[in-house]
Amino acid sequence: MAGGFDRRWAELLPVGRDGTTGGYRRFAWTREDHTLREWFAGECGALGLDLTEDRMGNQWAWWGDPDAAPGVVIGSHLDSVPDGGAYDGPLGVVSALAAVQALQEEGFRPSVPIGVVNFGDEEGARFGVACAGSRVITGAMTAERALGLRDADGVSMAEALRATGRGLDLGPDPATLARVGSFVELHVEQGKALALMDPATSAVAVGTDIWPHGRWRADFAGRADHAGTTALADRTDAMLEAAAFALAAREAAARRDDHEHRCVATVGKLEVTPGGINAIPSHVTAWLDARSPREDLVQGVIADLHGLFPEALREESWTPATRFDETLTLRVRDALGETTPLLGTGAGHDAGILANAGVPTTMLFVRNPTGSSHTPEEHADAADCHAGVDALVTVVKELAA
Amino acid sequence: MAGGFDRRWAELLPVGRDGTTGGYRRFAWTREDHTLREWFAGECGALGLDLTEDRMGNQWAWWGDPDAAPGVVIGSHLDSVPDGGAYDGPLGVVSALAAVQALQEEGFRPSVPIGVVNFGDEEGARFGVACAGSRVITGAMTAERALGLRDADGVSMAEALRATGRGLDLGPDPATLARVGSFVELHVEQGKALALMDPATSAVAVGTDIWPHGRWRADFAGRADHAGTTALADRTDAMLEAAAFALAAREAAARRDDHEHRCVATVGKLEVTPGGINAIPSHVTAWLDARSPREDLVQGVIADLHGLFPEALREESWTPATRFDETLTLRVRDALGETTPLLGTGAGHDAGILANAGVPTTMLFVRNPTGSSHTPEEHADAADCHAGVDALVTVVKELAA
Repeated sequence: MAGGFDRRWAELLPVGRDGTTGGYRRFAWTREDHTLREWFAGECGALGLDLTEDRMGNQWAWWGDPDAAPGVVIGSHLDSVPDGGAYDGPLGVVSALAAVQALQEEGFRPSVPIGVVNFGDEEGARFGVACAGSRVITGAMTAERALGLRDADGVSMAEALRATGRGLDLGPDPATLARVGSFVELHVEQGKALALMDPATSAVAVGTDIWPHGRWRADFAGRADHAGTTALADRTDAMLEAAAFALAAREAAARRDDHEHRCVATVGKLEVTPGGINAIPSHVTAWLDARSPREDLVQGVIADLHGLFPEALREESWTPATRFDETLTLRVRDALGETTPLLGTGAGHDAGILANAGVPTTMLFVRNPTGSSHTPEEHADAADCHAGVDALVTVVKELAA
Repeated sequence: MAGGFDRRWAELLPVGRDGTTGGYRRFAWTREDHTLREWFAGECGALGLDLTEDRMGNQWAWWGDPDAAPGVVIGSHLDSVPDGGAYDGPLGVVSALAAVQALQEEGFRPSVPIGVVNFGDEEGARFGVACAGSRVITGAMTAERALGLRDADGVSMAEALRATGRGLDLGPDPATLARVGSFVELHVEQGKALALMDPATSAVAVGTDIWPHGRWRADFAGRADHAGTTALADRTDAMLEAAAFALAAREAAARRDDHEHRCVATVGKLEVTPGGINAIPSHVTAWLDARSPREDLVQGVIADLHGLFPEALREESWTPATRFDETLTLRVRDALGETTPLLGTGAGHDAGILANAGVPTTMLFVRNPTGSSHTPEEHADAADCHAGVDALVTVVKELAA
């Protein structure tokens, strides 16, 4: 039964699910996150894996002594965007646990340690920086910056960590990274490229690269005044600049987007202060997400916006183009069969952070029939999920025979 | 000392004040609101007034038997917009209490009952409809509509009332309104007209009318998708329409605004769903506030927006032009002296709701040196506040001699 995939999948479905929207709200260092981490620890214990945490609280579970030799690591993350789908993240973790169970059941004896990882705070939904867990242990984000990030209620990550009883000794963790001989992250596809290919050979693809992508924060200042009594000429209304910014960001991306080279820009989050219907906004913060396979196109969008809105934009994160390890990628593809598709992606992943830190890394993508992601409609067929588990089993056998 | 104005003012200053912004967050049927209502009840008790509540929970405190004859009512409200100033509302309530104390101290014997009112939920900051307290008792808003209004957390007014231990038997209250022979609401000015006049005679003005004004809600639907992996051509991004709406609303007002006839439109509140930085917005709700001395100009703005965004706009409230009772207004002005300015306003007030319900009503405005309102910078000088108390004393003597 695909290594117990279905049982584990069913257990996770209720955790952090919003009854109204049907979407998931699994944010870093919340009660839901704690439930998921405890569940992960329990599953690893049942499989006889040894659980450790690194200097950012990412969970690593080992089959065999992780210091005996560089190991083969599979897994992903369990957190979600606001009202996200069930698959983004958890599919990779549950598939990894199922693959280990399947390998154990058939008596596989790995030649190197096998690790299952659950990265924390991949989506950055609470504190605004994606892949916070892998960024900190690789040094891509400093501990100071991470600890000072604040959520929408003004709670800093330091305060959130303390509230869970954790210490604040975050930082780069080369000892943990040295254990990772190769990392293969399985993830639901977040577009519909596979759904448009030959159905017989497109349940699972091997990842080749992650587009360069970044997040920026744009702050617009106004002056709070009464919306009924302040003449238009006497106002500084921050909403007007923020609205123009959202439209300009889209236009800047559209000017660069064509069939050959995609370019996207999105304002998905906006905070209005004070937020009263009869109060002129004194401050609006807009967050921009921009990506393209070509770094110069993304930087062109940002340059356009800098020109239109001087001093408003501040970079929150930037991940350059990431090519997965070519040797590893082709070895994985060969193990899965030469008809297995190769696929690049516009979405960021912990796999990209590890790859940029020099860890041999690649990804597997499981077909998504509609291409929808970051929404409750996100889906993968059960047969494709099982094919993903089978693919992980094949890959681990290839890399740890 | 102005009937104990300063002592009462100092007592209210800490209630519901945000330590970070310095603004007030006093929203209907919250703990802060409860504190203010209890404070009001205590002050009225100390003055020997008899406190009653009407069918919407507005507080009425009477000096003398309120059923003996139609009385003279003064007062205002204690709630605030998000991060509002200290004066909008509380100045009228505290001045009314101080005026009663001053009248009692000089041995004034009123010929008709004197009432002090604290209207609930004037700003509509929590449930979106301004003047909810006076609208329900006058029948301008039905109980069904009021009970079904929801705050940003999805809590209905019915649930909020239940949580405070209140019943849900809201509705028109003609018996309470019949007690009001005349209503004079004192309020801080929310523009800077008085500050531009002769300083010697402009500490207090008498109100003449309230501009027609309304609130609309605009809903824009998109489709939640991943901001990195969904091509621009495949998106429906609700943020883009909402941004265009905010800009179009301003333009529609600006086209009609001139020195002779003012016209304003404001989008002060925006809600983005799901609100993730890497999620394309599936829904954005924008709230519009529009006003002008000329009803046809406001309706022109709305017609323009209906044309540009068909089916997005829904009226949440509409208050037609309100002229205060001319006889009462001139009698009050004569009592205060013929140099007392007369002033119209773009801001809505419970006084406007009562006037439209046929209650003889007028207002007093206290000078605001900067014109700022709905912001922590909102201010009135202490001497002008005391002049406001004196004016109320004079007005009550005139109307209840």
